[in-house]
Amino acid sequence: MIIDCHGHYTTAPKALEAWRDQQVASLSGTTAAPSVSSLKISDDELRESIETNQLAKMRERGIDLTIFSPRASFMAHHIGGFDTSATWSSICNELIARVVGLFPGQFIGAAMLPQSPGVDPATCVAEIDRCVEEYGFVAINLSPDPSGGHWTSPPLSDRHWYPVYERMVELDIPAMIHVSTSCNACFHTTGSHYLNADTTAFMQCLTSDLFKDFPTLRFVIPHGGGAVPYHWGRFRGLAQEMKKPSLGEHLLKNIFFDTCVYHQPGIDLLTKVIPVENVLFASEMIGAVRGIDPTTGFAYDDTRRYIEAAALSMDDRHKIFEGNARRVYPRLDAALRARAAA
Amino acid sequence: MIIDCHGHYTTAPKALEAWRDQQVASLSGTTAAPSVSSLKISDDELRESIETNQLAKMRERGIDLTIFSPRASFMAHHIGGFDTSATWSSICNELIARVVGLFPGQFIGAAMLPQSPGVDPATCVAEIDRCVEEYGFVAINLSPDPSGGHWTSPPLSDRHWYPVYERMVELDIPAMIHVSTSCNACFHTTGSHYLNADTTAFMQCLTSDLFKDFPTLRFVIPHGGGAVPYHWGRFRGLAQEMKKPSLGEHLLKNIFFDTCVYHQPGIDLLTKVIPVENVLFASEMIGAVRGIDPTTGFAYDDTRRYIEAAALSMDDRHKIFEGNARRVYPRLDAALRARAAA
Repeated sequence: MIIDCHGHYTTAPKALEAWRDQQVASLSGTTAAPSVSSLKISDDELRESIETNQLAKMRERGIDLTIFSPRASFMAHHIGGFDTSATWSSICNELIARVVGLFPGQFIGAAMLPQSPGVDPATCVAEIDRCVEEYGFVAINLSPDPSGGHWTSPPLSDRHWYPVYERMVELDIPAMIHVSTSCNACFHTTGSHYLNADTTAFMQCLTSDLFKDFPTLRFVIPHGGGAVPYHWGRFRGLAQEMKKPSLGEHLLKNIFFDTCVYHQPGIDLLTKVIPVENVLFASEMIGAVRGIDPTTGFAYDDTRRYIEAAALSMDDRHKIFEGNARRVYPRLDAALRARAAA
Repeated sequence: MIIDCHGHYTTAPKALEAWRDQQVASLSGTTAAPSVSSLKISDDELRESIETNQLAKMRERGIDLTIFSPRASFMAHHIGGFDTSATWSSICNELIARVVGLFPGQFIGAAMLPQSPGVDPATCVAEIDRCVEEYGFVAINLSPDPSGGHWTSPPLSDRHWYPVYERMVELDIPAMIHVSTSCNACFHTTGSHYLNADTTAFMQCLTSDLFKDFPTLRFVIPHGGGAVPYHWGRFRGLAQEMKKPSLGEHLLKNIFFDTCVYHQPGIDLLTKVIPVENVLFASEMIGAVRGIDPTTGFAYDDTRRYIEAAALSMDDRHKIFEGNARRVYPRLDAALRARAAA
């Protein structure tokens, strides 16, 4: 089967955005915050938003299952404080759970966290528990920069983040390291902030001994690892100068890269440079780049085509499409086994 | 000939760093600022610092000429105010001019600017003029983030920067877009801040119409363009969604990438994806990555080997090694022609 480990609910019914707009407007104090119960989205609306979008493309492209999480750019942890983010993430995660309930064979959930700049990440643990235990989610999205482009939190190697890691290890779930909208005019959200965050997160791990403290902690770095595979020689050389172990020993038992790289030469480099065990199939469809590449005639984000065309053995391709995801997301593997046995 | 467009004076005699330490210490107000004349570095010291380092490696690797500028990580524009940066950049640029005077066949200068967070970039124009007119420098290094990792300046497309661009166009000099030390704990200077800045600068240009205002303005984006070539499909797709012209039309008459990518697969991708006219040979030697790659037995930053091994025609290789640099740095070309005629 083909598992896409990186999909966001970018096509949610407009009522969701309208509710959020009301919530944001209420922060100025001139209007009341909307109640959670005032948001009404029917199953039919959810079904249609998925069937005509993600599911249609999954069928067209032969993708069997997507690990599905709330829209990354809408997380916007920088807006309001913890309560604002807690209510918003709870709503967004519940919608994901409902989508999974409607399409249990095609989607499985990953949680957005109620992060807020300056707030102890320990406050996210309750939502992690709820999403994993009640909704059966198999992963979380963790933002290294809840400020939205001002980078005011400590690096991922700091003890600041340990409460989240401790719970991840207990639950045996990985985190995709994924920022949200940039509110810094220097950074375009999907063109630079996302890629910069990927590179930054990798380097924060490289300079630290985080994975000595958490040998089973697993991070998925999206967007093909930002700049990392392209500069693999640079990172190998920097680790060497810092007297760190080889990157394979130091980081690759814990860090994985997805395949959201939207052209053949990029995927060719990724699959050549990074050990195949560390590459997970993903497309981030429907996401930042939705058009048709005029040089190929196919969608930029139809990444399956690039993996099929890359110089990979059948066995390696299987690892990228399915095997690695089952290993990195054990709760996904367990869910698939339970279904198969049912 | 082989022109390396990206070298910094990372091996300056220790007296320079000691002087800077005194300058920085004086900012607390408890010690006096050192006088410029108190910095004493002899020609012999300069000669030795170059002959045993950069020049030795240039000879070993067959590099004929380096475009040489002050040490990037030492620019540290975030320290002190404009006066601090003005004195420091004046000293650093003068040292480069002296190195060029001692080795006129092997080095030509590029200027560091007296940038300072929150200060109008127009204040840099006098130093640009001095370096180009008195010292014969052929380019400048322009930091899009003088704050050192807090990204508090407007994007490069903002009119904030136009006084520098106007003078660049008048003098017909390019700028290498190069940040300095990160003082934000999230960003490792050479492992993430440099690469992030490259990606960020490219995207700032992509989302704007800067080169409509300055059709002859030229930016060299170092470190192989950060994440850009690896994600070329993403950037093509984003430009397409924004209804911008193709990247070739929109940006590649004005933006060039250097070859500071420290492994063969990275250079192979760069030279495959980016038109050869937009690739400039560089190594940033002696810089961030100084070791020997155990997988090749050669220095990571010996980038000439990667260019030699890439699938390029003789003609294309010549463009990367020399032809493009003469076009992008017309004052370099003029200097080389004058020497040849002499």
